[in-house]
Amino acid sequence: MAHLLSVDPFDRHAVERLFAVARGAEPVARRRKVCRALEGAVLGNLFFEASTRTRISFAAAFCRLGGSVCDTTGFTFSSMAKGESIQDTSRVISGYVDALVVRHPERGAVAQFAQATNIPVVNGGDGPGEHPSQALLDLYTIGNEFARLGKRLDGAHVALIGDLKHGRTVHSLIKLLSLYRGLRFTLIAPAGLEMPAELCEAVGARDHHIETRQVLRQPLKDLDVAYATRIQRERFTGEQPEGYTADFRVDKAFLDECCGETTVLMHPLPRDSTAGANDLSTDLDADPRLAIFRQSDSGVAVRMAIFATLLGAERQLQGPLRDVTWRTPSAIGPNDACSDMPSASIGA
Amino acid sequence: MAHLLSVDPFDRHAVERLFAVARGAEPVARRRKVCRALEGAVLGNLFFEASTRTRISFAAAFCRLGGSVCDTTGFTFSSMAKGESIQDTSRVISGYVDALVVRHPERGAVAQFAQATNIPVVNGGDGPGEHPSQALLDLYTIGNEFARLGKRLDGAHVALIGDLKHGRTVHSLIKLLSLYRGLRFTLIAPAGLEMPAELCEAVGARDHHIETRQVLRQPLKDLDVAYATRIQRERFTGEQPEGYTADFRVDKAFLDECCGETTVLMHPLPRDSTAGANDLSTDLDADPRLAIFRQSDSGVAVRMAIFATLLGAERQLQGPLRDVTWRTPSAIGPNDACSDMPSASIGA
Amino acid sequence: MAHLLSVDPFDRHAVERLFAVARGAEPVARRRKVCRALEGAVLGNLFFEASTRTRISFAAAFCRLGGSVCDTTGFTFSSMAKGESIQDTSRVISGYVDALVVRHPERGAVAQFAQATNIPVVNGGDGPGEHPSQALLDLYTIGNEFARLGKRLDGAHVALIGDLKHGRTVHSLIKLLSLYRGLRFTLIAPAGLEMPAELCEAVGARDHHIETRQVLRQPLKDLDVAYATRIQRERFTGEQPEGYTADFRVDKAFLDECCGETTVLMHPLPRDSTAGANDLSTDLDADPRLAIFRQSDSGVAVRMAIFATLLGAERQLQGPLRDVTWRTPSAIGPNDACSDMPSASIGA
Repeated sequence: MAHLLSVDPFDRHAVERLFAVARGAEPVARRRKVCRALEGAVLGNLFFEASTRTRISFAAAFCRLGGSVCDTTGFTFSSMAKGESIQDTSRVISGYVDALVVRHPERGAVAQFAQATNIPVVNGGDGPGEHPSQALLDLYTIGNEFARLGKRLDGAHVALIGDLKHGRTVHSLIKLLSLYRGLRFTLIAPAGLEMPAELCEAVGARDHHIETRQVLRQPLKDLDVAYATRIQRERFTGEQPEGYTADFRVDKAFLDECCGETTVLMHPLPRDSTAGANDLSTDLDADPRLAIFRQSDSGVAVRMAIFATLLGAERQLQGPLRDVTWRTPSAIGPNDACSDMPSASIGA
Repeated sequence: MAHLLSVDPFDRHAVERLFAVARGAEPVARRRKVCRALEGAVLGNLFFEASTRTRISFAAAFCRLGGSVCDTTGFTFSSMAKGESIQDTSRVISGYVDALVVRHPERGAVAQFAQATNIPVVNGGDGPGEHPSQALLDLYTIGNEFARLGKRLDGAHVALIGDLKHGRTVHSLIKLLSLYRGLRFTLIAPAGLEMPAELCEAVGARDHHIETRQVLRQPLKDLDVAYATRIQRERFTGEQPEGYTADFRVDKAFLDECCGETTVLMHPLPRDSTAGANDLSTDLDADPRLAIFRQSDSGVAVRMAIFATLLGAERQLQGPLRDVTWRTPSAIGPNDACSDMPSASIGA
Repeated sequence: MAHLLSVDPFDRHAVERLFAVARGAEPVARRRKVCRALEGAVLGNLFFEASTRTRISFAAAFCRLGGSVCDTTGFTFSSMAKGESIQDTSRVISGYVDALVVRHPERGAVAQFAQATNIPVVNGGDGPGEHPSQALLDLYTIGNEFARLGKRLDGAHVALIGDLKHGRTVHSLIKLLSLYRGLRFTLIAPAGLEMPAELCEAVGARDHHIETRQVLRQPLKDLDVAYATRIQRERFTGEQPEGYTADFRVDKAFLDECCGETTVLMHPLPRDSTAGANDLSTDLDADPRLAIFRQSDSGVAVRMAIFATLLGAERQLQGPLRDVTWRTPSAIGPNDACSDMPSASIGA
């Protein structure tokens, strides 16, 4: 691939090839080994929209490969404020750096960056458009969790929960999941925030089973993955805003009562932890089924794989790598139950 | 040199010595080779005025030499907001880093930084003052273009176009060009935006020929370089603001009708590509005479040469350098005609 | 130590162990040698409150150890603006980087970051709370100055001057100094800005002698260190705001008339150099007793020692290090009298 703008061009083979590179990157991403494959390379990490965690995740991934990073933050470049086109900005910066990550509030803006340069451009989120590295790390996480649990993705039961209308994350994720075989999807969204019909049709056409409902607190039989997303209060248009809050809060009671012992609970983060927020509850933080931090941790390995693939440096992650020369904690967070679990191939 | 504050101290010998270092840096700047000469060194890249592209160009140049970069952006340091003097800021930061690039909206501010430290300070633009690295990369680009075309700088015909009154870029460039012999300058500016008289006198005193005019669309015989700059609308004071737009737009028609087949078209960028802007037209983007991106690309090699010279690391760019370990496109932009042309000595 | 949140856990042994590491870091901090101990490691340098110099000092220290730095500036992360808790932010970023420096306007916020992660967290200042690396570099500087002057810290006479009520710097410093034996402290503060009583009691309980006064311009017999801090005008609550300015200005006359020939003059910086500011005068800049820039320079070695200790990489600063491959000035500032003085153990 020349750029990473969307998940659309991915078939199952391309996904698994990328994940094989990501698995090779794990010892570096988990700070056991040091890789200098991109020593001398420079990343332009251009964030026209604030997204601190995504920016640092990409930057850290590039640094872990040995490269250096130039960041920009803020809605425009000073040059764009003077009327410079995206095409000019892209071409000029491309003369300085080896790859670009671009996050932009407008759909299609990142593709415009890509059209004006031959260096690789990664879409770090283009407004309501796509955020492909997020969907890829989500799928990679599911693969890791399933490998740990001895499950297979083909035939799995996945629930997508929350605002399925506006969430670009779930749109991209369901596209990637539908590359596998015979999945059962339960789509749980309040009225008015359902998954777009054309996406459901495309998934259904690939022989997956889709069930939709508006109520969260009902049993989900043999559920393998519960993927929760935030419902932004201002988007809810029903008559009972009080009921909405209680209905869609994913907490320990929901997980215990409606899900299973091996259900993997995911969320793209950030979660709103302020009082009364209708988001993933913190009463789950010590529950080993909560995979949200294993999920965000995976961003580094997946983004390393994206850079290594786009820049043709995959092989150097396979060679012998030297040990780190500093101390790394065995678990990153105090609640980490299985952050060092072995990773294995999806569908293997 | 201890600092790079202005082009004034440069004679022809100093210019050509710097450009010899820049040519040595080209394989690294063009991502064929990796250099680690400044591994362990740190640059303080202090931008008190926004200039994203210039900031990244300096940062990338320092990274390509193996160093690390600490950036600041925004009008003041938090310490300066508490009344800290430029002298104290400069001395404190100099204890942390090996070189400073300073961009500041006030003329002379960068020189104040330089007076307070013994580490090298590079002027990245001080308001209406100077922007010496831009003028040096412009001249370096002309040298590269002429080498490709088999031309010599001595005796060349150069047109400077646009706002010649406020453009610090053209002021510094004409000073550097006048170090060569027997040039012909055509200075084309609207009434009220002419090149300052004292600069014209200084150039004339060195035996160059100067012609001035207010109309763009007239033939320019044997023109070797057309250097266009933006006219900021708010600076135009004539009675016919409509006429101004049509008059000073540098586009394909102008290049075809008034210039020659080997005229090199340059611009310091950014160009205003919004509708109705009185700037360089995008209808030239596929024309091989348009050198604007070869020009901005050259910024990396020239800025690497500046750092290597100021820090006494020139020799390490001459030694054997290792190949890059990632994939680099053969041309950076889709319209690049000759981005990999050989570079040669000015005047050789 | 797992984190550096406060000076409270330090005993004399821990301080001297850290300073031994800092002395080992000096050849790198002073740019004579290159160290790559942390090559491949990444620092998250999170500044929720502006402090440009502190941010660069930490970043440069990490770079000098061979690591890479990801910076953030501004009061919140974009994710925190969406309701993300400090706990989640800390845990997510900890999956990307190897250590965190956090500066935050609220007391205790940095400790919250530390509770949510097993990677080392350094308090870069938490509002009215602590700024432990500043106190440590202050003490380290005193040790270096005393070694040069052949003095010992036990039994020394130290004056703390200015706003002793709000200055977290002097609070932490007096705690560290009180780990030594038999010091004499003269605490000079305007009425209403005195050192908190509980701190005086704790220091007195360790058998140090404390004298307090409200007038600056009186002789200070056998004074070894004068540590001045800024009095913020808005905090002065006396009836004679004019008198306050004249009274508390530390200048050459004060140093010559009230202090001694070997008194070391320190200040945490920045100093307010604007006209009429009640701060350290610039008429002292050529006086070799002024140690303020040797003090800020020491920040790099001390912060390198903090990182090396927290990350278990101290030993690599002891091994043979290679020479720098660029030119470093013999003195950093034009007024530097003894920037290259040998450093020796405190109390040795």
